[in-house]
Amino acid sequence: MAERICNSTIILGNRPAIIGYGSVVGKTERDGPIGDEFDRFDVDIRFGEDTFEKAESRIQKIAVETALNKAGISEKDCDIIFAGDLLNQCIGSTFGLKGKEIPYVGIYGACSTMALGLSLASIFVDCGIANVAAAVTSSHFCSAERQYRFPLEYGALRTPTSQRTVTGSGATLVSRSDNKPYINSVTFGKIVDKGVTDTNNMGAAMAPSAADTIREYFLDTNTTPEDYDIIFTGDLGEVGTKLLYELLIKDDIDIRCRHNDCGLMIYDKNLRDVNAGGSGCGCSAAVLNSYVMHRLENGDFNNILFMSTGALLSPTSALQGESIPGVSHLINIRNP
Amino acid sequence: MAERICNSTIILGNRPAIIGYGSVVGKTERDGPIGDEFDRFDVDIRFGEDTFEKAESRIQKIAVETALNKAGISEKDCDIIFAGDLLNQCIGSTFGLKGKEIPYVGIYGACSTMALGLSLASIFVDCGIANVAAAVTSSHFCSAERQYRFPLEYGALRTPTSQRTVTGSGATLVSRSDNKPYINSVTFGKIVDKGVTDTNNMGAAMAPSAADTIREYFLDTNTTPEDYDIIFTGDLGEVGTKLLYELLIKDDIDIRCRHNDCGLMIYDKNLRDVNAGGSGCGCSAAVLNSYVMHRLENGDFNNILFMSTGALLSPTSALQGESIPGVSHLINIRNP
Repeated sequence: MAERICNSTIILGNRPAIIGYGSVVGKTERDGPIGDEFDRFDVDIRFGEDTFEKAESRIQKIAVETALNKAGISEKDCDIIFAGDLLNQCIGSTFGLKGKEIPYVGIYGACSTMALGLSLASIFVDCGIANVAAAVTSSHFCSAERQYRFPLEYGALRTPTSQRTVTGSGATLVSRSDNKPYINSVTFGKIVDKGVTDTNNMGAAMAPSAADTIREYFLDTNTTPEDYDIIFTGDLGEVGTKLLYELLIKDDIDIRCRHNDCGLMIYDKNLRDVNAGGSGCGCSAAVLNSYVMHRLENGDFNNILFMSTGALLSPTSALQGESIPGVSHLINIRNP
Repeated sequence: MAERICNSTIILGNRPAIIGYGSVVGKTERDGPIGDEFDRFDVDIRFGEDTFEKAESRIQKIAVETALNKAGISEKDCDIIFAGDLLNQCIGSTFGLKGKEIPYVGIYGACSTMALGLSLASIFVDCGIANVAAAVTSSHFCSAERQYRFPLEYGALRTPTSQRTVTGSGATLVSRSDNKPYINSVTFGKIVDKGVTDTNNMGAAMAPSAADTIREYFLDTNTTPEDYDIIFTGDLGEVGTKLLYELLIKDDIDIRCRHNDCGLMIYDKNLRDVNAGGSGCGCSAAVLNSYVMHRLENGDFNNILFMSTGALLSPTSALQGESIPGVSHLINIRNP
């Protein structure tokens, strides 16, 4: 039975482990520094579909099926799936997963969705509510650009603080196991709003919530950054990462020598339009379910923190002058 | 510890009970047949805010605070909140709940959100992950009209099968208790798609998923409609309710004499623009956290099924010719 230990961190005692995972990306991500790590990619940005939105659904479907294949189980063995994405009304998930005979829990955490879904899946398995639970999310550069910014055909330039939405999806399957990387704890973040209103600077909007969740976690568990092999954040990019360091240093927490950001790992920095890094639900999802999992499995990492960071805005809220609150959820993954 | 008993139904053994609840509606809902049941209403459709979206956030905030007040606890006593709504990127919830010091889990289930959030809150409490968990959702006629259909200023007429989005919010607080109505089981639905494409007929789009979840529940628990005082569906309206009856009769399940639909209860049927009934996340949320809870507390009901029904479309998916899949989640609430 799970046991709460402090405000926000939930220790899971029954080794909900990652028994399968899958990642799918687009060509730009495949051409990046960790491109070899991903399971699947396609040179066609539409992945054989006729719209970008359907392409996004398609990559979620492929990610889930890849994870099921790796785990050697069928969708009927999966008791529940947690899924969400950035598209209005989360249609990436709906149309990616419809037809699957799996009870469906829709979630919305913006770019924090991977950690959010994996946290819920881990809790369900830890508590014996599910034997196998899945978490999946996605984003797509083209569907995000036209929904959040401008039609691609405008060829609009973006600011140096802006980030490129990753075309990618990641799926994770959780079940109890004694010999696979397992989720030791989950920390659900609060909504943190420091009044940032620049929709071209998501890193700055998300960093305060990342700092808040990390601070809470170290306090809850009485640990320090040195206790972990590495700490991953989702998609803070260059600006958000710098700001995260500054915010944490104020509390005497220095993560600099043990930190990496999925948004800084996924693209070739010299690429036009990458600007401050990668972003989108698919960013941390694809990196977790490839690069990170490979290194947990081969023993390069044995005890890590993985956090996805979300900016809770919509084009409507931005146009109405609202600020951009953030939320970040954190997971401690360990090797047995 | 929760124990799975069959495919989709999770029996909760530790009496996660409803210790507080709150409902807020607009004037049209207040003027309806069950208007006296709601905690709060405002004649101002903007609830003192300058946009409809901010009004929706405001009613979520009021609903949560009403529930906390009734339970006699403060927000610091609440360990986690599950929240979502119909607005793009769920901004109704973000801006309604930002500033609250409660770990935040964003969910998206369209109009199934109340049952979805309450299911998750109940599981967290049942498993000892939270002492107190909250679920909240909302919808607003004006914010929904302009997002899903037309600007209100057009004065567009709607079809007889269409439903009116409820301006309303409902919040529920769950904690273990031996003397309050408790959640005995939850059943997460699957995505069900029968190919309905008429965005002015949500009832028809959602009814197959409602039938699927009810069928699954009766099979899982080996019970019949006669075992329950009443079965509530969320917002099927006239068309969806008729279709639900037809679909269930094929499986020899007759719920007709024990069924009511929140979408059929909330409005005066003679009102212009109500058409086939009420809809929106706020519909079943407001009815559960007023009319239904009052009757559980006074003993009129002792064993009920409550199901919210969601249509998983977006304006984009509809314009791209996609069908409208549905998802429905079901809760069994009992008196001790």
